[in-house]
Amino acid sequence: MKISVIKVGGNVINDEAALASFLDQFSQLEGAKVLVHGGGKLATAMAQRLGIEPKMVDGRRVTDAETLEVVTMVYGGLVNKRIIAQLQAKGCNAIGLTGADANIIEADKRTGWEIDYGFVGDVRKANAAPIINFAEQNITPVIAPLTHDGKGQLFNTNADTMAQAVAVALGKAGHEVSLRYCFEKAGVLLDVNDDNSLVPILNPSKFAQFKEEGIVADGMLPKLKNAFDAIDASVSEVWLGKVEGVLANSPVGTKIIGA
Amino acid sequence: MKISVIKVGGNVINDEAALASFLDQFSQLEGAKVLVHGGGKLATAMAQRLGIEPKMVDGRRVTDAETLEVVTMVYGGLVNKRIIAQLQAKGCNAIGLTGADANIIEADKRTGWEIDYGFVGDVRKANAAPIINFAEQNITPVIAPLTHDGKGQLFNTNADTMAQAVAVALGKAGHEVSLRYCFEKAGVLLDVNDDNSLVPILNPSKFAQFKEEGIVADGMLPKLKNAFDAIDASVSEVWLGKVEGVLANSPVGTKIIGA
Repeated sequence: MKISVIKVGGNVINDEAALASFLDQFSQLEGAKVLVHGGGKLATAMAQRLGIEPKMVDGRRVTDAETLEVVTMVYGGLVNKRIIAQLQAKGCNAIGLTGADANIIEADKRTGWEIDYGFVGDVRKANAAPIINFAEQNITPVIAPLTHDGKGQLFNTNADTMAQAVAVALGKAGHEVSLRYCFEKAGVLLDVNDDNSLVPILNPSKFAQFKEEGIVADGMLPKLKNAFDAIDASVSEVWLGKVEGVLANSPVGTKIIGA
Repeated sequence: MKISVIKVGGNVINDEAALASFLDQFSQLEGAKVLVHGGGKLATAMAQRLGIEPKMVDGRRVTDAETLEVVTMVYGGLVNKRIIAQLQAKGCNAIGLTGADANIIEADKRTGWEIDYGFVGDVRKANAAPIINFAEQNITPVIAPLTHDGKGQLFNTNADTMAQAVAVALGKAGHEVSLRYCFEKAGVLLDVNDDNSLVPILNPSKFAQFKEEGIVADGMLPKLKNAFDAIDASVSEVWLGKVEGVLANSPVGTKIIGA
């Protein structure tokens, strides 16, 4: 079947009006679809209210046991269930999932890095079968950025990577997958402060050139790596851009082209 | 199909060792099954950590907006996802749900009482179809005590009543349902402090007599009302007792007999 995998990030999750508008557009998107959401700043705010200090090692955030509790509550409970209730109100029969639910995404604890990230999981395997089963029942999976190791341990996991892994698994199972990353920019930009400098199509050689020239840097690098990994594996199309662009029936944003 | 609906309460949820032991027994229970869990004291503890004062009106707990956030996080996130991860580790392919997920349980805001309970929902309708679909895929639903009104509002809802509503909906859909309430006592007791005073079978006339004599009182009254409502509607058998009793293949506890 044709299926869209939509990733939405913190800038939308953090803003009630932006979230409501996004969910309007998402619920109107035709055909089978999956939503993968980030956690946004709500987890940081909740951790602060609970007096949990952010743990940083070499400038990188670490998920200790207390922080894992907070993200499990906030991503898996507060954010995910609010989205589900709102989608139901819009006539979209949604179901909230973490990677542990119906075992849709298994992960391994991140090891072998210079620092110990704590309870952070890297995706080992996404399972297409339960997702397709939901789609066949007209149930829309909404996935929170948490995974598990199959041995009882939950993990904090990057939502961009989870969206990529789900899209690739669906593609490998023979489905026609459109993966769309919604974020705060219109897409890949030549000038990060100018939405009019949109790069409408990005292929691997241009990506390499942009990296060298420093046009894409920081958070865009792992996002684009996920996008190219998806298109190189099994995903039919990948778009990046703002909600109103990439959720349009004729998407507007940066289209990723494979090698 | 034959399907068991198991309710487990706070005394088990609050105690890590008791929960692990319960999940062992639950995962070994043969055939299709559904778990409905309470929230226990974790939500109260989390509310306290967040500086949220319990709101009581006429001696009754009220779910205000802040408290709804806490129970959504704790019941739908922390408690539910920990159970899911542990069940996956035991080879039970579980999926965590609130009433909003796949629209399994719709509710109305509690009104018409002397006090305003806030965001408390009374079950309007449980939907058997998605639950049966999960069971047919060998996926075990694990339901947190939250519902929704279909208009975007989540509610705090009594887990005993949710278990009853799910059991009745499955029974009315033609399935053979065994409903089992696990709690801290061996069942209905003639002497509340003596597990040896177990009443093995309870029928409506004996229940009426026990109420008059004050043998059953307080929290047992709504629990038993749920049990009789279930057996009078469509449920094949209802048991109440301790985990190790009511989860046995030949259950030990109080068996409820209909009119």
